[in-house]
Amino acid sequence: MTSPSNDGTLEAGEQRLCEQVLGRDPVLRRRAIAKTITLLESTRPDHRLRADALLNALLPHGGQSFRLGISGVPGVGKSTFIEALGLHLIAQGHRVAVLAVDPSSSVSGGSILGDKTRMEQLSIQEAAYIRPSPSGGTLGGVAERTREAMIVCEAAGYDVVIVETVGVGQSETAVHGMTDMFCLLQLPNAGDDLQAIKKGVMELADLVVINKADIDVNAATRARAQITSALRLFGQHGNPEHAHHLEDLWHPEVLQLSALKNTGVSEFWQTVSRYRELQQRSGRLAARRHAQDEAWMWERIDAGLKALFRSHAQVREALAPLTTEVRAGRVAASVAARRLLDLFH
Amino acid sequence: MTSPSNDGTLEAGEQRLCEQVLGRDPVLRRRAIAKTITLLESTRPDHRLRADALLNALLPHGGQSFRLGISGVPGVGKSTFIEALGLHLIAQGHRVAVLAVDPSSSVSGGSILGDKTRMEQLSIQEAAYIRPSPSGGTLGGVAERTREAMIVCEAAGYDVVIVETVGVGQSETAVHGMTDMFCLLQLPNAGDDLQAIKKGVMELADLVVINKADIDVNAATRARAQITSALRLFGQHGNPEHAHHLEDLWHPEVLQLSALKNTGVSEFWQTVSRYRELQQRSGRLAARRHAQDEAWMWERIDAGLKALFRSHAQVREALAPLTTEVRAGRVAASVAARRLLDLFH
Repeated sequence: MTSPSNDGTLEAGEQRLCEQVLGRDPVLRRRAIAKTITLLESTRPDHRLRADALLNALLPHGGQSFRLGISGVPGVGKSTFIEALGLHLIAQGHRVAVLAVDPSSSVSGGSILGDKTRMEQLSIQEAAYIRPSPSGGTLGGVAERTREAMIVCEAAGYDVVIVETVGVGQSETAVHGMTDMFCLLQLPNAGDDLQAIKKGVMELADLVVINKADIDVNAATRARAQITSALRLFGQHGNPEHAHHLEDLWHPEVLQLSALKNTGVSEFWQTVSRYRELQQRSGRLAARRHAQDEAWMWERIDAGLKALFRSHAQVREALAPLTTEVRAGRVAASVAARRLLDLFH
Repeated sequence: MTSPSNDGTLEAGEQRLCEQVLGRDPVLRRRAIAKTITLLESTRPDHRLRADALLNALLPHGGQSFRLGISGVPGVGKSTFIEALGLHLIAQGHRVAVLAVDPSSSVSGGSILGDKTRMEQLSIQEAAYIRPSPSGGTLGGVAERTREAMIVCEAAGYDVVIVETVGVGQSETAVHGMTDMFCLLQLPNAGDDLQAIKKGVMELADLVVINKADIDVNAATRARAQITSALRLFGQHGNPEHAHHLEDLWHPEVLQLSALKNTGVSEFWQTVSRYRELQQRSGRLAARRHAQDEAWMWERIDAGLKALFRSHAQVREALAPLTTEVRAGRVAASVAARRLLDLFH
């Protein structure tokens, strides 16, 4: 293979992949998507250069989908819900990609989407593309691969991209930062300790879905009222300065449904569509994406700078002992930071 | 003046300041605290070296206070509350320092604590020290100066340090990151749009105080029930892995009081003391401070790295056009980050 160029032009192999991702042959397209994502997930520097060129070539063809984040603790029924939603959307003529961000997933198989028997009906649809979470690495790395895979799927014509995450950690913030709408799935017994959602997750939600609402109708109704009131109490959603009119502001809603019994899925999509229309009309959809892209650029710069910093010889030598001094209260944190930065500079 | 040494030993001037801060003469001590904090707030590099040496000399004498963060929107009655609490504590034999984090404060006087007529009764107490927010600069800089001033006050024997902030922005996270307990003041009309607390603030609260509860007792009671339920819904507070026993976990509480009528202040401090005792016994107070110190070191390192990055000649040249490309969707955010990092490296 020829060595990749660094000027952004595509080598023959990537040119072909690009054409196939954008092309009309469903079999070639599906294979090209998988190959492209695999290339994006590679950690080899030469692969990375080729992947970057390919990504930039696909980028102008991306961005046309609606990006929907779905989160919820294990057991809340995410797979069943996404499968029901996916089949509903495909029946309406949509093409649906399902990606995942799960930093806990390892090479041996992720804890979400790793199970091949999941979403059995959805996965056999020609109009669906399901990809498990990139395995291993930091949350930042996993999220970066998923963001890039999203662009590939969009370029290939998937007009709804669902990004699933596990609801137990910081991955929610990452998924919120790459989607147009963030939905949190909850069980009817919302007040229970069992539900154990992490602080900071609920407030990210544009929409809360009480799944398995058929199990206990009274509990689900109570949960809906409680969560609605809590969402209002927990502060403003979105920046009112970005709204030209107050009626343009979206207030997070709470829905009940049963994915298993397939009730409420259509109402869910109507709500999503209403949100999408409102966000588009007010310009907040575009504003959110611009802000996400810029934030993402800085997030990766920060991670890169920190990696450079940590690998700097003198910093490496001084970091552990200084950290110990800081934790023991013998050196002030700000003094330690300045000393380390002086070594780096 | 002799040039400051870089090895952490104190020059004569700082040696004297240090002795006076730690000493028994109340007049000299008060003046020395003010001079030390002014030195810490200086942006001159030679001052900074002297300030760092002084800070490290005071550090072993700090850390003995209880650090209480107080936040709430303008009009909620923070000053009246802090004055009532301060006087209550002084009557019990405590010594109370009041600091502030207000990134909006300018050289001409901050929006909180800048008003000289505030806390009139508290400010004349010998056992009280009140310092307005460091003016100007970034939130990170303002917070850093306040963290350092806190250590000076602790070294001078203030055993309760109250850090006030404005309740309308990111300063809450900074104050939460430097205190042992974070209290949010609310008005009885909690559900109202007027209350406009930012997302993410409520969930930081270890304790919510409904102030001015005398104005509308029914509304205050309703607000208390609503906020209690919302706090429970919005996820776990603290990391249960750090608790040896479940009863060691603190669940955020909601209190009613009227600072103006001085009712509920004693109950407030009893609740704070109960929290403090629980956190100390379980080891979470020490764990929180260690984590805060380390997080703070990294926060300052990140800020320093970003400043170095932004001032790098080639990065400066490429940053604006690449940001435009990213926002326009012509270059992927991750590709732009890698290009800029390559220039920097």
